[in-house]
Amino acid sequence: MTENSDARAFQIGTAFLAFVMLLLIPFAAFAQEVLPSWNEGKAKSDILAFVKTVTTEGGDGYVAPEDRIAVFDNDGTLWSEQPFYFQLGFAIDRVKTLAPKHPEWKNKEPFKSVLAGNLAGVAKSGEAGIVDLVMATHAGQTTDEFEKIVTDWFATARHPKTNRPYKEMTFLPMRELLDYLRANGFKTYIVSGGGIEFMRPMTEKMYGIPPEQVIGSSIVTKYQLNGDEPVLMRQPKVNFVDDGPGKPVGINRGIGRRPIFAAGNSDGDYEMLRWTTAGAGPRFGLIVHHTDSVREYAYDRKSAFGKLDKALDEAPKRNWLVVDMKNDWRKIYPFDQ
Amino acid sequence: MTENSDARAFQIGTAFLAFVMLLLIPFAAFAQEVLPSWNEGKAKSDILAFVKTVTTEGGDGYVAPEDRIAVFDNDGTLWSEQPFYFQLGFAIDRVKTLAPKHPEWKNKEPFKSVLAGNLAGVAKSGEAGIVDLVMATHAGQTTDEFEKIVTDWFATARHPKTNRPYKEMTFLPMRELLDYLRANGFKTYIVSGGGIEFMRPMTEKMYGIPPEQVIGSSIVTKYQLNGDEPVLMRQPKVNFVDDGPGKPVGINRGIGRRPIFAAGNSDGDYEMLRWTTAGAGPRFGLIVHHTDSVREYAYDRKSAFGKLDKALDEAPKRNWLVVDMKNDWRKIYPFDQ
Repeated sequence: MTENSDARAFQIGTAFLAFVMLLLIPFAAFAQEVLPSWNEGKAKSDILAFVKTVTTEGGDGYVAPEDRIAVFDNDGTLWSEQPFYFQLGFAIDRVKTLAPKHPEWKNKEPFKSVLAGNLAGVAKSGEAGIVDLVMATHAGQTTDEFEKIVTDWFATARHPKTNRPYKEMTFLPMRELLDYLRANGFKTYIVSGGGIEFMRPMTEKMYGIPPEQVIGSSIVTKYQLNGDEPVLMRQPKVNFVDDGPGKPVGINRGIGRRPIFAAGNSDGDYEMLRWTTAGAGPRFGLIVHHTDSVREYAYDRKSAFGKLDKALDEAPKRNWLVVDMKNDWRKIYPFDQ
Repeated sequence: MTENSDARAFQIGTAFLAFVMLLLIPFAAFAQEVLPSWNEGKAKSDILAFVKTVTTEGGDGYVAPEDRIAVFDNDGTLWSEQPFYFQLGFAIDRVKTLAPKHPEWKNKEPFKSVLAGNLAGVAKSGEAGIVDLVMATHAGQTTDEFEKIVTDWFATARHPKTNRPYKEMTFLPMRELLDYLRANGFKTYIVSGGGIEFMRPMTEKMYGIPPEQVIGSSIVTKYQLNGDEPVLMRQPKVNFVDDGPGKPVGINRGIGRRPIFAAGNSDGDYEMLRWTTAGAGPRFGLIVHHTDSVREYAYDRKSAFGKLDKALDEAPKRNWLVVDMKNDWRKIYPFDQ
């Protein structure tokens, strides 16, 4: 070997080493950064183990990328649902905006209670009252108009306790979980009892979930012509309630594959958890348990919003992971220090 | 420069050239292979021009990849719909299979006509008869069971005229169009009046379209427990008819974005074409006109299946491309010579 070729070999060796290190840096960074807002413990390690199982080619639990479907409830799972579902906050604000055009609301429930800021009174109007409230505030316009109304509301509306914009009241550990699953080839969906057209304008920005991966409750929409312009008019009639036993129905209709991962936080997610985890092969069911009265809220069996009772009882038997927010999460909101 | 470094420079030069050529080969091949079953002409060049417009970054008509949504009708657009919708063929075969368990069908329409091979008699039973036929053949089992029934049928059933498996009766030029749009960042959907769970087991293999990108008509499904096993039972009740004015409704619910490209072949696609092409920016509406009585079928304004009348009249005014199958397509089926 000549001196020249030695030098050349050295150069190539150095270049190769630099190249390999360049490749390794992102992996090292990635390894450090997985689920950073989750404390070390069983919850985090169970999630990591599951993802490793389904992504290990040649392994017993390997799942092809196209079947890596993960479904997430929204209210109480991806963002807060206290002191009330944020969509109820939207409806309340909308009643106030529309009230000048509806003088009759001053003496008509549930509008009277809404205008008086009396949530107990709204609750007392029961399911029929809630339906009236939804229809008065969510129907009567085109889908394009409603999208603008929702977008405008999110731009200014704030949470009654934190005074933060509602759109910031997301759970950082769950957003990290969404990112982590997607980085491992999962397709992530929202499957929520909330209104599909209330969520869609925001989910891409909030969670990286595009409109076509949002499944939710809906009212009837009707195609018609305004002059020569085709529009979809939102009708004051319930089309589909994507909650409880409706969730597997919504998943089947909207996705057409059975998910292998489901996350929820209430009995409204019970059937979705059952449906998901009853499939063959590796399955993961996750329940967010609201245990942190200081940083968020502590509630379960008796809550008006997000009641968690039956699903909590059955979690051990069904092998569902119960995440203890207080102990498993280092941070809750993105703005937490 | 020494001789050694000259040789080295030459080597690098050669290696670089080889590398560049390697990069260019697929592009050259790609350029030759775009829509090979389409004859040169206005139809093909209009499609190429539209795709160029929406994919040219910095251009006036540029559309971000996430908004490149393309929707395709199925019957008569992606595969044949003659001499009857293939799903009707499925229903007929299913009646024959189930008949031993239903002796009453011998004297009850539309089953009597189905069993006698009398399609005119089936048609005479009207919409109510067709609904009876669908419910008797598409309901009463779990979604998993129905998927197997459909998959098994496709494995053996054959087209009455060509004697080819139904799943081979796809239009090759349209499959090339799907591939071409996807290669240009489009997300392709089926939006069909056909049953969603009749299509989903086959669309990935037939068209490269996964179940979650199939929108169709549906019957009601109900979550229930069989022992401890959660199932979705198919109920004998119509849930949604994804046809005519139902198509924009189905698109809005299932995708939540307005497509920029729509392809259909009948008046059942009229509202989908209107809805798609009424949006802002570049839009493309395409109608497959069945003009080839030799290689496929020739029909339009008076056909029992796939009637094309109003949409054909309005195509010039709406700037929708009318594809003349006989003249615009070099091949129709994949098995054509």
